[in-house]
Amino acid sequence: MTVPRSDGFERTRVRRLPEKQVTERSVLHAILDAARVGHVGVADADDQPYVLPVAVARDGDHVLMHGSTGSRLFRGLAEGSPTCLTVTILDGLVLARSAFESSMHYRCAMVFGTCEIVRPDATLRCFEVLTEHLMPGRWVQLRPPTTKELAATTLLRLPLTEWSVKVSAGWPDDPAEDLDEPVWAGVLPLDAAFGSPRPSPDLREPYEPPAYLTQWAP
Amino acid sequence: MTVPRSDGFERTRVRRLPEKQVTERSVLHAILDAARVGHVGVADADDQPYVLPVAVARDGDHVLMHGSTGSRLFRGLAEGSPTCLTVTILDGLVLARSAFESSMHYRCAMVFGTCEIVRPDATLRCFEVLTEHLMPGRWVQLRPPTTKELAATTLLRLPLTEWSVKVSAGWPDDPAEDLDEPVWAGVLPLDAAFGSPRPSPDLREPYEPPAYLTQWAP
Repeated sequence: MTVPRSDGFERTRVRRLPEKQVTERSVLHAILDAARVGHVGVADADDQPYVLPVAVARDGDHVLMHGSTGSRLFRGLAEGSPTCLTVTILDGLVLARSAFESSMHYRCAMVFGTCEIVRPDATLRCFEVLTEHLMPGRWVQLRPPTTKELAATTLLRLPLTEWSVKVSAGWPDDPAEDLDEPVWAGVLPLDAAFGSPRPSPDLREPYEPPAYLTQWAP
Repeated sequence: MTVPRSDGFERTRVRRLPEKQVTERSVLHAILDAARVGHVGVADADDQPYVLPVAVARDGDHVLMHGSTGSRLFRGLAEGSPTCLTVTILDGLVLARSAFESSMHYRCAMVFGTCEIVRPDATLRCFEVLTEHLMPGRWVQLRPPTTKELAATTLLRLPLTEWSVKVSAGWPDDPAEDLDEPVWAGVLPLDAAFGSPRPSPDLREPYEPPAYLTQWAP
């Protein structure tokens, strides 16, 4: 389903390479659903920005993030500091006839706004969403979180209200005068793949790795 | 060579999971040298942070980044806004016996400071460093940048003075009471690889992809 994104937000207007902007919400969702990690920005009292890698999972019209209750920066997010969460998936290198036109294939989503702390009555369900996104099929295999574990974790959600998406997926875009340059041009795709599972040295039995691992997308 | 990192910077003291902190400068360099893309944070006048993906390359004790002279946020960086550049490489999933202990293998470098504009007399050399990092062997194949192209690009460098590195590379660290949980535990490595080169539709001759492509690390 394609739903137009909300508009009227100046900071989500794409100024650079506007032809790469994508406004379909379904593309935003697909990028978030394809990523396990994003980078979240938060500024401290001295306007010093911090950029932290965080595990992410989409829950409907929100992105979930979790962190330690002891994390100073996560506390800042929980207290309502304005933030920007950026999820970038690198898909390849674009080898043009010049360094200037050479670039990358990527899918990038930026979400602006303010995080909310997930309400206690929704916490367990949101942990399930996060766990199932990061490790599909695993939630039912694992014992439930303890009260102590839940208390040690801050679970935040950021609404998908103000966002922008850029997708670069084209061929090299060399000007006509460069097309006779005697150099190969094209795209080198970048793929991610999971390797063979490595059992933990303290695994109690020589369990075979579970079949669901082979179905995970990297 | 292992050189201790500069110390005395409060904002690079790792508070969360300090056992994962690595202080060898050689590890910082290795992470930067293994990455093509980082995420740079900059706050606007309203303290709104922006997190942008940028191509990066290390040049000795600096990281190089380039962007369009038309980019408002890049101009902010060039004008000396405090920044944080974070480079994260995801190496795998750590499947513990509980959701709480499950985590990821990663290498993460955060660099704090203020960017400098690369001086005109160093610009061409720095473009070569950047190009050779992103696409090794390609610089000598490509025509030199034009004056117009150089004028359209802002080339910044961020000194590697204030930084912190975290590396997560261990086995699941389940508490003793979880070791009998009937669930597989271990590590699922995540690997990146380049696919087959796809020639540009406007390639003048049916050139074979150059041999150096097969030697590139993803």
